[in-house]
Amino acid sequence: MLNEELIASFEQIVGKNNTLTQKDEIFHYGHDETETIQYNPELVLKPGSAQQIANIMAICHQHQIPVTPRGAGTGLSGGAIPHKGGVVISMEKLNKIIAIDEKNLQVITEPGVITEVLQNAVKEKGLFYPPDPSSKGSCFIGGNIAENSGGPKAVKYGVVKDYVLNLEVVLPNGTIIETGASVLKNSTGYNLTQLIVGSEGTLGIVTKITLKLIPLPKYDVLMLASFNNLQKASEAVSAIFRAGYTPSALELVEIDALKIVSNMLDSHAIPIHENTAAHLIIELDGNNKDLLMQEMEAIAGLLENFEVGDLYFAEDEAQKNELWKLRRRVAEAVKLAGYTIEEDTVVPRAYLPELIKGVKELARQHGFEAVCYGHAGDGNLHIRIKDPRTTTSYNAPHMQQALGELFKLVKQLGGTISGEHGIGLIQKKYMPLVMQEANLQIMRSIKKAFDPNNILNAGKIFDMQ
Amino acid sequence: MLNEELIASFEQIVGKNNTLTQKDEIFHYGHDETETIQYNPELVLKPGSAQQIANIMAICHQHQIPVTPRGAGTGLSGGAIPHKGGVVISMEKLNKIIAIDEKNLQVITEPGVITEVLQNAVKEKGLFYPPDPSSKGSCFIGGNIAENSGGPKAVKYGVVKDYVLNLEVVLPNGTIIETGASVLKNSTGYNLTQLIVGSEGTLGIVTKITLKLIPLPKYDVLMLASFNNLQKASEAVSAIFRAGYTPSALELVEIDALKIVSNMLDSHAIPIHENTAAHLIIELDGNNKDLLMQEMEAIAGLLENFEVGDLYFAEDEAQKNELWKLRRRVAEAVKLAGYTIEEDTVVPRAYLPELIKGVKELARQHGFEAVCYGHAGDGNLHIRIKDPRTTTSYNAPHMQQALGELFKLVKQLGGTISGEHGIGLIQKKYMPLVMQEANLQIMRSIKKAFDPNNILNAGKIFDMQ
Repeated sequence: MLNEELIASFEQIVGKNNTLTQKDEIFHYGHDETETIQYNPELVLKPGSAQQIANIMAICHQHQIPVTPRGAGTGLSGGAIPHKGGVVISMEKLNKIIAIDEKNLQVITEPGVITEVLQNAVKEKGLFYPPDPSSKGSCFIGGNIAENSGGPKAVKYGVVKDYVLNLEVVLPNGTIIETGASVLKNSTGYNLTQLIVGSEGTLGIVTKITLKLIPLPKYDVLMLASFNNLQKASEAVSAIFRAGYTPSALELVEIDALKIVSNMLDSHAIPIHENTAAHLIIELDGNNKDLLMQEMEAIAGLLENFEVGDLYFAEDEAQKNELWKLRRRVAEAVKLAGYTIEEDTVVPRAYLPELIKGVKELARQHGFEAVCYGHAGDGNLHIRIKDPRTTTSYNAPHMQQALGELFKLVKQLGGTISGEHGIGLIQKKYMPLVMQEANLQIMRSIKKAFDPNNILNAGKIFDMQ
Repeated sequence: MLNEELIASFEQIVGKNNTLTQKDEIFHYGHDETETIQYNPELVLKPGSAQQIANIMAICHQHQIPVTPRGAGTGLSGGAIPHKGGVVISMEKLNKIIAIDEKNLQVITEPGVITEVLQNAVKEKGLFYPPDPSSKGSCFIGGNIAENSGGPKAVKYGVVKDYVLNLEVVLPNGTIIETGASVLKNSTGYNLTQLIVGSEGTLGIVTKITLKLIPLPKYDVLMLASFNNLQKASEAVSAIFRAGYTPSALELVEIDALKIVSNMLDSHAIPIHENTAAHLIIELDGNNKDLLMQEMEAIAGLLENFEVGDLYFAEDEAQKNELWKLRRRVAEAVKLAGYTIEEDTVVPRAYLPELIKGVKELARQHGFEAVCYGHAGDGNLHIRIKDPRTTTSYNAPHMQQALGELFKLVKQLGGTISGEHGIGLIQKKYMPLVMQEANLQIMRSIKKAFDPNNILNAGKIFDMQ
């Protein structure tokens, strides 16, 4: 599809060094962290500015060339996989934090900045950007916007969408727009900013981001609580909120997952009780240490109603980091252990026990193994599946049937397919289980309005039919 | 346009009692709180269910009849004014709170519930729905969603969009959809929920709303601080945030506005210093009273750097209510006093002093009087204008020129036209001053995707051209 003339014009825009055509260079851009899927693009471009991206898009729009925008490739739904071939636009060179506006508590950044780098940069100024996916050490902030990422802090502080004030976006035809203004309140026309957030790179390519920041809380306290009964642990979650507490993190990890990650990291600093069913990780943050300690003690007392076992308080930064490292690397560890399929279900918080019960029943019925972990405080449960019959099984018919039943349960509980990973390539077939055809038709119309030639990350989230 | 046959079919849907055709009955539905504009509809319908609305819309879609959805008519940008005639659909009969879900901290409500009624109902369960426009005692929650309303608490708790989890919406062709799911995190396709919020009734009619609730803070403290210098008062605002405090309200009111409302209410309980320039109203809330008192004292100390005058602490609920009543009724009072034009500008918080300075200069240059008040903590400044040359002046050429200059300044400061009132009918001509033609084209395409016949609140926010 891409003749030499076209490749030459792309080279002219981004330079020879930023134009990859060799198979060994391109291979990396053919997958992300989703299972074991690989589709190679024809060409990878690494532009250095919004204008270069606009010029690339103008050509691709004219010649109807498929384009897949790519952040750090840490996605879990195949959003960055170039399954139609064509051009991958890697955002890795747009990697500068443009300005930290301490007066207005905002940061302006390019999309190719690693999330943790951004968090640390604003932290140095006493400011806080809360959304922190487990991959924060490697993912890009631009990818977080594409997927509307969450992470452990979302339970108190909200997800990415709650921090995005304004975006510079290259539209599929090469026009550059700003979606909003750098203000805290905005009722000036349709919310294009929120339409781009979570649109998985299908409506435009984000080239500049204005994020809201908040004052950094001075203290946090962190507790690990073990439970012999998974149901009880999940019931404890909503009880904490009903008692009026808002933890800054409330995570659940099943014991099998915790054992796998603990072995992988060869970590012994955190006392994990192997003969339990699950652990809750509970964090509180704020500006008054005594108050936080009092609240954590009250929560510990409340957990006794749910047959809590041992409680472990992380005493210092080293212990806190160790515990968070365990939590953050669960997904990677269980994937390596053969749990290759990851689901990102979300339900209203109080229905988490029913969801977990349903998962375990489905696993028994369909003969697969499932471990559960995730952002329990948000009702956002990650389910990792190991299927003894196949390792590349997201498309296997028996697995599709099992996942279909899982998602029907999720829908029945008032939830949906994805809380923070997006739909991308691999979940789109399940969209009709959780929304009406009318919703999909509206989404298609919106896609068409932005991208009449259907070139930008086409075939992600839904097919145009 | 509406023949007897059509009127009869509407009557069949909603009943004779809910079909208004007489001029005296209809007059009320021809205006909202925007200046003195009046356009009568041909017909007012008061449906009692989403299905009735769907049936009405199917007919209007087929016959290309203009439809204006209407909440309580408290809007300030003309969003509910039926300037194309046709049918007004009043939401007043969809006025039930369907369920308060204490387990999941959510409320499901119909759109015709008065915001304060909803707030009080969830408060009784120890829960909190923060967005509270000044008109909370009369406006509908559905209207708040249409305009993405804010109010004083937005500075800490966010605006309406931050609380809407899911919406049931009747599309212009009569299809009923749900926009999302009742979950705290959602990365499942385009965010149709956020597209409807703030779309001012142009994309669909909201018939059911799921809102997130939070635990009700136990205590609040409230202070009124006077300043002899308007600039210093506005500079103090961002200093409070830079010092790490997040007030639950931070309002600014110029002395002229405060005098007018104080006289109107014949209120003497709150000590207002007439020889000052402006007052700040500062509220803190939380669960620890001592901590709140300490923080308020620290803020009071900080204000000394900005030449603060007298400080008044509201001691009890009665004093707090009295002070809030003064603040809430400012808009009404100054409107009665001849300040008929209201602007809803918003800039990054730290640029508030420059905005206020610009407003005063424009008033001098163009020969009008302006009083400023509003949600200073959000950079959201309401400007009320009294023009000695005309009382119905939003369309007067000299006023258009002055407002154009104001909005150019707002844009230059990184802000936009409307923080919480919407664009509606009267601000649409200024949209090109704050956004590119490409943005407007995308908005038109979205409108067309939802409403191909352009019947639903057509000509609001923008014209289709």
